[in-house]
Amino acid sequence: MSPTRARPAAPSRRARRHDPGRRDRLVETALDVIAEQGVAGASHRSIARAADVPLGSTTYHFASIDELLAAAFTRHAETVAARFEERMRAACGREAAVELLVEHLTADLLGAPRELVLSVELYVAAARRPALRAVTQAWMLRSRRALELHFDPVTARELDALIEGLVLHSALSTDPMTSEQIRHAIHRFTR
Amino acid sequence: MSPTRARPAAPSRRARRHDPGRRDRLVETALDVIAEQGVAGASHRSIARAADVPLGSTTYHFASIDELLAAAFTRHAETVAARFEERMRAACGREAAVELLVEHLTADLLGAPRELVLSVELYVAAARRPALRAVTQAWMLRSRRALELHFDPVTARELDALIEGLVLHSALSTDPMTSEQIRHAIHRFTR
Repeated sequence: MSPTRARPAAPSRRARRHDPGRRDRLVETALDVIAEQGVAGASHRSIARAADVPLGSTTYHFASIDELLAAAFTRHAETVAARFEERMRAACGREAAVELLVEHLTADLLGAPRELVLSVELYVAAARRPALRAVTQAWMLRSRRALELHFDPVTARELDALIEGLVLHSALSTDPMTSEQIRHAIHRFTR
Repeated sequence: MSPTRARPAAPSRRARRHDPGRRDRLVETALDVIAEQGVAGASHRSIARAADVPLGSTTYHFASIDELLAAAFTRHAETVAARFEERMRAACGREAAVELLVEHLTADLLGAPRELVLSVELYVAAARRPALRAVTQAWMLRSRRALELHFDPVTARELDALIEGLVLHSALSTDPMTSEQIRHAIHRFTR
C-alpha cells in the first residue's frame, strides 16, 4: 500500500472526485511557482495558495515535497523532450537533423526563458537531491533515443552533452554564440 | 561616490579597521551558506549569523545581496579557474592537455560535490539575475584562454561548452560516463 493510500483522506478524496483535473493543475502551478520563486519557494502551502485550492488537496495528491517536485520536473522534461522528438522525427537525413538540432537549441531552449530557468532549477535540485536524478536520467535517455534516429548511440550520448553545454554557455554569456557558431560546433562533432 | 561610502558607517568602519580580513571571511562564509542552503538562503542576515559578525558588518562591506553574491561567486569561479589554468600550463602538448582535461573534469569538477553544487547555484542565479552573467562570462573567458594554450580559439570555445555538458550530464545521471567515455568525447572533438 502506498503512503498516499494509507492516509485518512475522506475530504480530499471528495475534492478529488469533484475535480478530476486537480492533480494536473497542481503540477502546472508547481512549475509556475518554481519558475517565479525557485525550488526554495515551492512548498505544499505556496502551491496550494497559487492554485487556489485547500492545503489538504496538495498533501492528498503529493505525500511529500520531493514527490511534488518530481512530478513537476517530469512534466517539464516531458514537454521539452516531446518537442525535441518531434523535430528529430521530422528530420530527413543527418544534414537536416543537424539543422533541426540548431533550431531546437536556439528556438526551443534559448528562446524560451521560462523553460530555461526551469531546466536549471531542475539541475540544481537534482544536484542536491539524488532522487531527482531519476528525472534527469529519464530525460537524457529520451533525448538520446531521439538523436539515435540519426546518429549511433555513442555519438548521440556525446552530442546530447555538447548541446547541453552549448545551451548553458549561451544562456550564461554576455556574448552568446550565434546560430552559425552553434552549427559549426555540432558539425565538427557529427562529421 | 559609491552607495557603500554614502552610508553613515562609523561603527562598521571601526570593525573593519580592527579586522582587515573580515570582508574575505564574509565571502567564504557566503559560499558556505550557498552550498548548504542555496542562493535562496543567502542574505546579509544569514551570512552575518554564520560568520558570527554583526549584521552591520555585512551591510558595510556589501551594499546589496547582489553585490555579495557576485563577490562570492567570483571567488568560487576564480578558485576553479586557477586550478584549471594550472593543469593546462602543466600540459606539454595536445595529448597531455586532453589527459589533463579528463583529470580536471573527473577530479576537480565531478569529484568535488561542494564545488559542483556551487557552480550549478551560480548558473541558476545567473539565469535569473543578468548582472551575475558578468561572473559567468569572465569565468568562461578565463577557461578559454587556458584552453588556447593548446587549441585554437574556436576549438577552445566549443571544447569549453563540451566540458560543461559532460560534467553536468555526468553529475545528473544515475549512470554517469566513465573516464574512458569522457576521453572519447574530448578526443573526437580535438582530433
